[in-house]
Amino acid sequence: MAIETIIKSPHKTVIIGPDHPFVIIGERINPTGRKKLAAAMQQGDFSQVRADAVAQVAAGAQILDVNAGLGVANPHEIEPQVITEAIRIVQEVVDVPICIDSSVVPALAAGLKAAWGKPIVNSVTGEEDRLEAVLPLVAERGAAVIAVCNDERGISHDPMVRFEVARKIVERAEAYGIPRADVLIDPLALPIGAVGTAGATLLQLVGMIRDELGCNTTCGASNISFGLPNRRALNAHFLSMAIAVGMPCAITNPLIPEVITAIRAADALIGHDENCAAWIRHQRQLEQIASGGQPTAGGGNRPRRRRHRR
Amino acid sequence: MAIETIIKSPHKTVIIGPDHPFVIIGERINPTGRKKLAAAMQQGDFSQVRADAVAQVAAGAQILDVNAGLGVANPHEIEPQVITEAIRIVQEVVDVPICIDSSVVPALAAGLKAAWGKPIVNSVTGEEDRLEAVLPLVAERGAAVIAVCNDERGISHDPMVRFEVARKIVERAEAYGIPRADVLIDPLALPIGAVGTAGATLLQLVGMIRDELGCNTTCGASNISFGLPNRRALNAHFLSMAIAVGMPCAITNPLIPEVITAIRAADALIGHDENCAAWIRHQRQLEQIASGGQPTAGGGNRPRRRRHRR
Repeated sequence: MAIETIIKSPHKTVIIGPDHPFVIIGERINPTGRKKLAAAMQQGDFSQVRADAVAQVAAGAQILDVNAGLGVANPHEIEPQVITEAIRIVQEVVDVPICIDSSVVPALAAGLKAAWGKPIVNSVTGEEDRLEAVLPLVAERGAAVIAVCNDERGISHDPMVRFEVARKIVERAEAYGIPRADVLIDPLALPIGAVGTAGATLLQLVGMIRDELGCNTTCGASNISFGLPNRRALNAHFLSMAIAVGMPCAITNPLIPEVITAIRAADALIGHDENCAAWIRHQRQLEQIASGGQPTAGGGNRPRRRRHRR
Repeated sequence: MAIETIIKSPHKTVIIGPDHPFVIIGERINPTGRKKLAAAMQQGDFSQVRADAVAQVAAGAQILDVNAGLGVANPHEIEPQVITEAIRIVQEVVDVPICIDSSVVPALAAGLKAAWGKPIVNSVTGEEDRLEAVLPLVAERGAAVIAVCNDERGISHDPMVRFEVARKIVERAEAYGIPRADVLIDPLALPIGAVGTAGATLLQLVGMIRDELGCNTTCGASNISFGLPNRRALNAHFLSMAIAVGMPCAITNPLIPEVITAIRAADALIGHDENCAAWIRHQRQLEQIASGGQPTAGGGNRPRRRRHRR
């Protein structure tokens, strides 16, 4: 039976698995590399966070990544309160599960307190200190976790080394009581412009991790094209290729039309879109937008504007 | 070691295999569904054939499919001479190998006489009468052959049945002295709009055929989107998905920009484009075309206008 990772918001259940339509984890709420957003968040202005949440869900994101890495000198003091506020704001305007994204453990802990339903913790690595700090938090809450295939030695270019890091994390997670279905392995998408084998390595690992570890995979899919021209086309085709080999979700930008087209096309082509209904609906929406109209309702996950109470 | 299918024109060798850049077999020289072209060819006017040959090679086709199916009542009398003339014309203007495409055995025989180098015969099926008629021609010439996974029972929707048809053809070909490397299996791309599992079945069979039969695969890639909106996007993503699972070539239309973008992107992403050089060159050409200029030379296979003698 195919693995299913089940993630929840107050009223939505998202199933991640190779037999289900691809799940977009929206990447936009991330101040890294967005100076204006970082400055606004630091000053307590979350209007852009709110707008990014609504726009991404309207565009098709089923989960939202929330990162509060402001690049400050004292992240352990600042990030927990900023991520708490960002998650609170997001949950006010949309009803989708949260992917709590931080390299700061107290921020992950704070995010787990703030997030409703069953969130994803992003991320743990194979480093001993990360395993011991992050996995107990994930286990205690019954959350899912993204496991990134690097460890104290850094990121290996050898797929077998990354695979062994994945195995180590999965086994340690199980020792903490976290089932394999709740560990999403990130085999790491390095830029192909720097590492020519980066794409092939990732595609190879997706199948190996599914077949030999029984885990779903994910990745930050926008990194693959770094430094190259026409990144949108590369990112779009990378996504359909990842879907072809069985990757069930990725952290990506649903506001890029090429990304949505790639995912809807790949879902239809691989048989995850009954009667190609989502594809046909997506094309109708594009036609309406092109002719100056508004897309009709019901085409995606519409944002909810009501407040939800846990 | 990965399988390599080697195809030749007088001065060009094309290597088809999972460790090589994707090979485009240009599909345009085919009067089926092109009434004007059919009428012209029947009247002995091959100007469009000539133009299609030059344009497809300039766009990146490394092999050209030549079909002379005019839909006449007496194809066994007409097609051999028409395909002979079409192949002659194509070889006058471009130096690429030919894929001789006919369901009429005497036309395949005539095509094999007309084609220089080492061509591909398109196609044989698992039907007994086809096996016995086509394989000796292929063997005698030392050509390659496309083996389509249907037989007397028609096209099965069960991947295992198609796989067994492939195995039967490969074994029969070997009995005739045709090596596995010279049998390109076509697992059949049916329209996903009619058969929801069509894409998944094809993607599954590509790996099975490579691993268990030791054969390369190909397909007519434009059929997958039949009847659906935005066929260009579906066809493009289908190609990158097929490349992701290891399909090394397809019969497709290189004159569609989305098709070329998909193939160049997938080659770069899977590590078949050293330093992403072809991708970067392709993007520069697009920029030059967008700014009203002509693409620079050297970006693809430029057509040759000299005559070649065998």
